[in-house]
Amino acid sequence: MKARIRITLKNGVLDPQGKAIQNALSGLGFKGVEEVRQGKYIEVDLAATDEAAARAEVEKMCQELLANTVIEDYAFELSAR
Amino acid sequence: MKARIRITLKNGVLDPQGKAIQNALSGLGFKGVEEVRQGKYIEVDLAATDEAAARAEVEKMCQELLANTVIEDYAFELSAR
Repeated sequence: MKARIRITLKNGVLDPQGKAIQNALSGLGFKGVEEVRQGKYIEVDLAATDEAAARAEVEKMCQELLANTVIEDYAFELSAR
Repeated sequence: MKARIRITLKNGVLDPQGKAIQNALSGLGFKGVEEVRQGKYIEVDLAATDEAAARAEVEKMCQELLANTVIEDYAFELSAR
């Protein structure tokens, strides 16, 4: 299965990269950009074919390595490859 | 509207960050991780409420600033906030 993981900063955590992107967009003439937040996107190809097992495994990966759960949230979807 | 943009390296472009994550996962005892690719995830809050206009604007942002289209692909979804 393939897991598509999005890792984002929690609300309230400062995001200078997002701010820099917002300023650059505004400098390029894009109007009406109210907020930009940057996060990480990770695709993991798993040998597991059972969805429940894959979900538990990806959850554990996020907790142990991929996300810093003090300041980051994560969410993921699973799909067949 | 809110745009959720995923920017990923094109197939065939080396991804050392993804490889490092894969090695770390394997070091932590996760079996059956066949490939890991790291990308960027950007959330943009737009004042626009018209979906077609918002889609055109985000497409332009990706082309002009957010993605390096020589080596990166992008995809996005729009939703009400």
